[in-house]
Amino acid sequence: MKEIESINIMDKFSLFKKEWTPFIIGELNEQYVKLCRLKDNFVWHQHENEDELFMVFKGTLFMDFRDQKTVEVKEGEILIVPKGVEHRPRTNGEVVFNLLFEPKSTAHTGDTKSDLTVNKQDWI
Amino acid sequence: MKEIESINIMDKFSLFKKEWTPFIIGELNEQYVKLCRLKDNFVWHQHENEDELFMVFKGTLFMDFRDQKTVEVKEGEILIVPKGVEHRPRTNGEVVFNLLFEPKSTAHTGDTKSDLTVNKQDWI
Repeated sequence: MKEIESINIMDKFSLFKKEWTPFIIGELNEQYVKLCRLKDNFVWHQHENEDELFMVFKGTLFMDFRDQKTVEVKEGEILIVPKGVEHRPRTNGEVVFNLLFEPKSTAHTGDTKSDLTVNKQDWI
Repeated sequence: MKEIESINIMDKFSLFKKEWTPFIIGELNEQYVKLCRLKDNFVWHQHENEDELFMVFKGTLFMDFRDQKTVEVKEGEILIVPKGVEHRPRTNGEVVFNLLFEPKSTAHTGDTKSDLTVNKQDWI
């Protein structure tokens, strides 16, 4: 069996520069742990069957919702977006380092297809 | 519906002092996000059906294994322990702040019953 090792999150963030493209750093219980660099506006979308957790490691993530006020997620904070809730992640122009926990089946743009949609998911 | 809000992890750690007793701060996809203060040795145990993620927010967690060398998990690092792998979390005497991500069904001492076993799980 492969040796079990710890994973340094900031070291993993340094391995890629592309924004809005999540990379996988771990898996457990049919869920992935992913890292994503965010900058400016993402697309409005929802996930019909999957809740999604955001955890910020650098900067401030703004999460817009259709039915409630925008939530700020700062470094050291998490936000859980329940399934079926339309949301739009964005930043104030800075690059935000974000960790995601979500089922393997989760597409990052949910039910929305856009230029930002990435179908292939890579490990780093 | 309840307003969706961000959760500050260090603020949540300040709400309890008890060691080796996980508190729940969030749930998604039948998984819990829990916080636990660790100090000294926990019990050897395994989870038959559940993988478990550890993420350290303060201090250094040492994870002993029967079949490989101990892994150090420092602040900003994660460790995923696959189901069925016996493990023992411990610290070098300091209090370690640890976040857990695991299925709702996971008992913190796995298949081991000990004085440290807590059956009830509380939200904070």
